[in-house]
Amino acid sequence: MAKQKQLKLGALLHGVGGGTSLWRHPDVDPAASVNFELYKSWVRKAEEGKLDLIFIADGLYITEKSIPHFLNRFEPITLLSALAAVSTNIGLVGTLSTSYSEPFTVARQFGSLDVISGGRAGWNVVTSPLEGSALNYGKKEHPDHDKRYRIATEFLEVTRGLWDSWEDDAFVRNKETGVFFDRDKMHELNHQGEFFSVKGPLNIARSKQGGPVIFQAGASEVGKNYAAKEADAIFAGAENLEEALRFAQDVKARAAAFGRNPDDVLIFPGIGPIIGRTEEEAERKYQEVASLVTIENALDYLGRFFEHHDFSQYPLDEPFPELGDLGKNSFQSGTDKIKRNAKEKGLTLRQVALQSATPRGNFIGTAEQVADRIQEWFEAGAADGFMITAAVPRGLEDFVDQVVPILRERGLFRTEYESDTLRGNLGLAVPENRYTKARAEAVRS
Amino acid sequence: MAKQKQLKLGALLHGVGGGTSLWRHPDVDPAASVNFELYKSWVRKAEEGKLDLIFIADGLYITEKSIPHFLNRFEPITLLSALAAVSTNIGLVGTLSTSYSEPFTVARQFGSLDVISGGRAGWNVVTSPLEGSALNYGKKEHPDHDKRYRIATEFLEVTRGLWDSWEDDAFVRNKETGVFFDRDKMHELNHQGEFFSVKGPLNIARSKQGGPVIFQAGASEVGKNYAAKEADAIFAGAENLEEALRFAQDVKARAAAFGRNPDDVLIFPGIGPIIGRTEEEAERKYQEVASLVTIENALDYLGRFFEHHDFSQYPLDEPFPELGDLGKNSFQSGTDKIKRNAKEKGLTLRQVALQSATPRGNFIGTAEQVADRIQEWFEAGAADGFMITAAVPRGLEDFVDQVVPILRERGLFRTEYESDTLRGNLGLAVPENRYTKARAEAVRS
Repeated sequence: MAKQKQLKLGALLHGVGGGTSLWRHPDVDPAASVNFELYKSWVRKAEEGKLDLIFIADGLYITEKSIPHFLNRFEPITLLSALAAVSTNIGLVGTLSTSYSEPFTVARQFGSLDVISGGRAGWNVVTSPLEGSALNYGKKEHPDHDKRYRIATEFLEVTRGLWDSWEDDAFVRNKETGVFFDRDKMHELNHQGEFFSVKGPLNIARSKQGGPVIFQAGASEVGKNYAAKEADAIFAGAENLEEALRFAQDVKARAAAFGRNPDDVLIFPGIGPIIGRTEEEAERKYQEVASLVTIENALDYLGRFFEHHDFSQYPLDEPFPELGDLGKNSFQSGTDKIKRNAKEKGLTLRQVALQSATPRGNFIGTAEQVADRIQEWFEAGAADGFMITAAVPRGLEDFVDQVVPILRERGLFRTEYESDTLRGNLGLAVPENRYTKARAEAVRS
Repeated sequence: MAKQKQLKLGALLHGVGGGTSLWRHPDVDPAASVNFELYKSWVRKAEEGKLDLIFIADGLYITEKSIPHFLNRFEPITLLSALAAVSTNIGLVGTLSTSYSEPFTVARQFGSLDVISGGRAGWNVVTSPLEGSALNYGKKEHPDHDKRYRIATEFLEVTRGLWDSWEDDAFVRNKETGVFFDRDKMHELNHQGEFFSVKGPLNIARSKQGGPVIFQAGASEVGKNYAAKEADAIFAGAENLEEALRFAQDVKARAAAFGRNPDDVLIFPGIGPIIGRTEEEAERKYQEVASLVTIENALDYLGRFFEHHDFSQYPLDEPFPELGDLGKNSFQSGTDKIKRNAKEKGLTLRQVALQSATPRGNFIGTAEQVADRIQEWFEAGAADGFMITAAVPRGLEDFVDQVVPILRERGLFRTEYESDTLRGNLGLAVPENRYTKARAEAVRS
């Protein structure tokens, strides 16, 4: 019997949480976002559960209206590197913006993380949705949405080129002859493009997984094309099965159209499981967390997607206000969806704000029920895996202790790591070095 | 009796070494520069010896002529962060260039490393000597020496400003009232300068040491002024006691002229101790390493200081060639010294190249003799501490096992860490947050 297709699992580690108020819960460390010991314990828990990866999100601009986690948190490269030293098999994926960084530095830092971790690094390529980021980087303006993706495309091309600077057998290190490296296997990139000009070579060679795994999270038209063309994995938002399925089919079709095998693009919807011994207990956990969110918190939270727009100026119980193009140049897909949903369902501002700040999600109930739902989405083709967020205190621990064993019993999830690299565990091939490939092709022809 | 003034000690961790040929030695791992397990063992050895800090150097441009360590090595931020997770008291200092990075990113990464490590980060501020760096960063030209220092000055001003974004008691985290932070203790920087414009605030608060320790290594006139004005510690080159003493007195006088207490600028000459059970054994160790260096290696090594100049074009046994301004815009102080020394002593190219590639140093002999020399320099005021480089295999291990105990017996070096922060161990005060200070001054007046 052929082995059942295996589910992939990641854990989004997010300090005091991605909402406004989880930090107020009695069981939450309100300084979690800058508590390295806690991150360490989460990574160990995730690795105990044989999860594929942990994921660190990021942002480059805050105001007094930002959610607590964003105000004071670890920077992803430093955090992932530190976590690399206290883990052995789990993948280490983090967000870094192509709009406000240099490809040579990014290639080096992710390349170095990849070698330090023994081939476990992943880079979530983002273009920075927040307009204010420009103000922290001395730029006249935040590039518009399409231009950001043009930059991202060239940026990734350069980064991948730099990762190939050294062929895998370039370092001979022959003590007898004194030959440290083979000059023919060291390559300058000499990239000259619209946005970047980079000579190379990079001063670090590839790890054994052949370079970091590329994640992407764009959901706009341009974003989906970018992800389908470039990404190994996609972190997707999804409110229900139908939407998740539509997204997965859409992106996989785009990947096929770009000449890729759709199985090489793994879709990870983000979910926040809330698990109780009974359905009622799970519901109580949700209500406990939702009750911490005030309407003021919820309005601030909503405002963040719309360039920190001040929603307190509108009446709460009237239809969601008309916002024109506001939000178009930041979280384009997210703000479009909020506007569309409000209009279609005739929601008031209060309803939109509370739904947005305290999403209930589809993964609430007993461990069995959550496992059922995961299996349902997975088997329907709506997901290759899931990114688990702790929506309630001990959310990751509950998931690993209670849901993972059920998934394992059902033959859906591994009992042991297949590999000690992230590509190995995700079932992705090691990308061939472009120069080695060219050399092999030259020999064949 | 007042406690004797204490010596400070750092270890420069440098993979296969800063020269051309140490990797060929039978006792050296030729892949040391990308062997994280080895770096981990070095940090543990240094921490076992209660050393103050480890130090990671860096560079942003390589060619086929670069020394082996530079071709393929870890990037400092990632390496230091990983090492933070496997150490508890030792300081973690690394080089990062102000000529090819953004202050917001640098402030975040060093700030985050500082929090992850519990207040043990240090930043060696460099301006990047290698002209080729510009080619990896899409810049038309490498800024000239003086301009690089003007950039560095403003860069550090911005970075320090960002580190003060949050006063130390800004995060209230009151679960009852729902107040996460005190708005009055969050500060935008709103910097607008010649080279940078940065709004802030930074999205990470200061560590308990109040921000990374600032190292500097400039030795030109401009560099010395910069270090004397801005740095907490200086990594100095020094060929002999007289030169080291002159340098220390010069920099301390400059610090005093800038209104600083000269004791707040710690001078660390870099030394490469070679220790034997007898003088002869130490000499044998040196010869063993020196004999690995061919004249071709030595010419390449020398060329690196002069913008990868090709010295093989000159006759080996004639006077050192006239080079004009070559090297002026890269390692200014180093190349000036090489030229001056060659002229004064009437050296041939062969002599200059070999001396440069296989420096013998002043710290060779038995452990007693090396300890004597360290004590002599320290008590003469030529050094507040030393940066130990492994000039021979097991150089760090020998130093910690054999020389440190002698320094300890003589009351010159600690038996236990005084602190778990780098500032604490170096005896440097926690810098007061500028806004807290302003508030205190406003109250007093």
